[in-house]
Amino acid sequence: MLSLAAHSLCVRATGYQQSLHSIATVISGNKTSKIVRERLKKEVEKMASQFSGFRPGLVVLQVGDRDDSNLYISTKLKAAAEVGIEAKHIRLPNTTTQDEVLHSIMSVNENACVHGLIVQLPLDSANCIDTELVTNTVSSQKDVDGLSCINAGKLSRGDLNDCFIPCTPNACMELIRQTGVFVAGKHAVVIGRSKIVGAPMHDLLLWNHATVTTCHSKTPDLPEQVGRADILVVGAGRAEMVRGEWVKEGAVVIDCGINHVPDETRPSGKRVVGDVHYSSASQRAGYITPVPGGVGPMTVAMLMENTVQSAQRFLLKLRR
Amino acid sequence: MLSLAAHSLCVRATGYQQSLHSIATVISGNKTSKIVRERLKKEVEKMASQFSGFRPGLVVLQVGDRDDSNLYISTKLKAAAEVGIEAKHIRLPNTTTQDEVLHSIMSVNENACVHGLIVQLPLDSANCIDTELVTNTVSSQKDVDGLSCINAGKLSRGDLNDCFIPCTPNACMELIRQTGVFVAGKHAVVIGRSKIVGAPMHDLLLWNHATVTTCHSKTPDLPEQVGRADILVVGAGRAEMVRGEWVKEGAVVIDCGINHVPDETRPSGKRVVGDVHYSSASQRAGYITPVPGGVGPMTVAMLMENTVQSAQRFLLKLRR
Repeated sequence: MLSLAAHSLCVRATGYQQSLHSIATVISGNKTSKIVRERLKKEVEKMASQFSGFRPGLVVLQVGDRDDSNLYISTKLKAAAEVGIEAKHIRLPNTTTQDEVLHSIMSVNENACVHGLIVQLPLDSANCIDTELVTNTVSSQKDVDGLSCINAGKLSRGDLNDCFIPCTPNACMELIRQTGVFVAGKHAVVIGRSKIVGAPMHDLLLWNHATVTTCHSKTPDLPEQVGRADILVVGAGRAEMVRGEWVKEGAVVIDCGINHVPDETRPSGKRVVGDVHYSSASQRAGYITPVPGGVGPMTVAMLMENTVQSAQRFLLKLRR
Repeated sequence: MLSLAAHSLCVRATGYQQSLHSIATVISGNKTSKIVRERLKKEVEKMASQFSGFRPGLVVLQVGDRDDSNLYISTKLKAAAEVGIEAKHIRLPNTTTQDEVLHSIMSVNENACVHGLIVQLPLDSANCIDTELVTNTVSSQKDVDGLSCINAGKLSRGDLNDCFIPCTPNACMELIRQTGVFVAGKHAVVIGRSKIVGAPMHDLLLWNHATVTTCHSKTPDLPEQVGRADILVVGAGRAEMVRGEWVKEGAVVIDCGINHVPDETRPSGKRVVGDVHYSSASQRAGYITPVPGGVGPMTVAMLMENTVQSAQRFLLKLRR
């Protein structure tokens, strides 16, 4: 029996242009991240049994007390506990100086029980703190967010096996892999060039051998650029900016956006939407990620993946 | 009076499609690099007069004795002498071990009289030497070739004022600027993704606000991709692979290729050509760089530019 997805692809293959009834296959970040977390849990158990109780260590360093940061951090700590990672939350008050933040990072850098260190951004501080300096003070060996210059340089120049890949682009690649669509030789379009999403996403697609176009706020012909994408990754930070009619028939559409829009039907008065207009895009795309439940949960899973990988590298060095 | 270039552009503007008689304006790297060298000479003289005979210092480290390396190095040393840079050529025999090379680099890193250090690649050694390790041992403060992870990371993430930009892409940008064509908002296509040319070229165009597509050996529809480029930079390493008929009318075409092809009419039996088929491309492009005399001489000038910039940063730190 043909699945709905396969049926939808068949409809496209017969040249049915006005495919109002075709519905893209939904790429579930919830389901995929669960599989990843289960795999990681087994790997952590294996490490613990091979190396007398050894567990990967993760530190989440927070400055201040932003509500959104608190929420993200609690999600990360929960995922870490589930996988078996020993996670520690260091909270510094918003009166902390830059020197104190750097000192705290260096102290974690030197702690051999910690294999991953992330600094929750944005920093919520009453003092002037150089975020770039903070990010680059994290040891590149423990930089499981992949945001330091050294890791960015390695990724951008194609040394993928010798760096930490930022979690959101890594999540996107994993979701693309789930579709079974080969990346090599495809035309990929990335909207956005941020350090956390767009720029490393370009690198990752490029070194997986796609032809990659990066679009941004200065791109004058965004609909035409999007229309050429076999694979589209959107990290623009603008609610539902990519319209369904721009999307190429059968494309893989990955939406990294998390935007709150007013919605009177909800008790909270708002709802979360992505950067892609989902209902229209899903009429044309072959595969699409939902928001919420797409890239978000996979990003957290990729942080766990990087932490476990870092611990494995640490053990490998010990054995040499 | 209209220049030939302006006339050519006017012809295009009237919609003349089969413009067999339109000839692109040649962007001369010889002329532009001479202007850059003259400007740098004045800057170096100014530094010398302000700081009692101070001169920027450059070290070119060579392992082995490749003919092509010898030629490139002598060109660099000549340009340095012309500008007033104190350049030193360190030659290590091809029997040098990796440790000896690293030791030599670290010794130059510590020498306060040296502001720029380049390791001539490829290394010509009888021993197994990790080129990546060698490149990354050069202090990022003296890495005037811009090839270390740290400098690549900064460039790839848009921190252009805090890094050294690799000389060939920097040369290409300078030649593009010479045309007066604005980069922001244009569609740029880069062919190639090498660490020295393609990858940093993408970054530089992107952070100058072009929409950038990177093509490479796995791109299946190269002629179509090239046909969309307002600005085309080719660093593919294949003689005359880009055909004139692919080029968009009026485009800026920058050719980084240096290829030797047989030519019985020359005493040497060969001649140098670029990666672009020049005679056909110059019939469609608005601006084009020749090979030789285009990107090559500008690349050397940009090495001098980076060295002078490094010396200026050094002086700035001293004054703080």
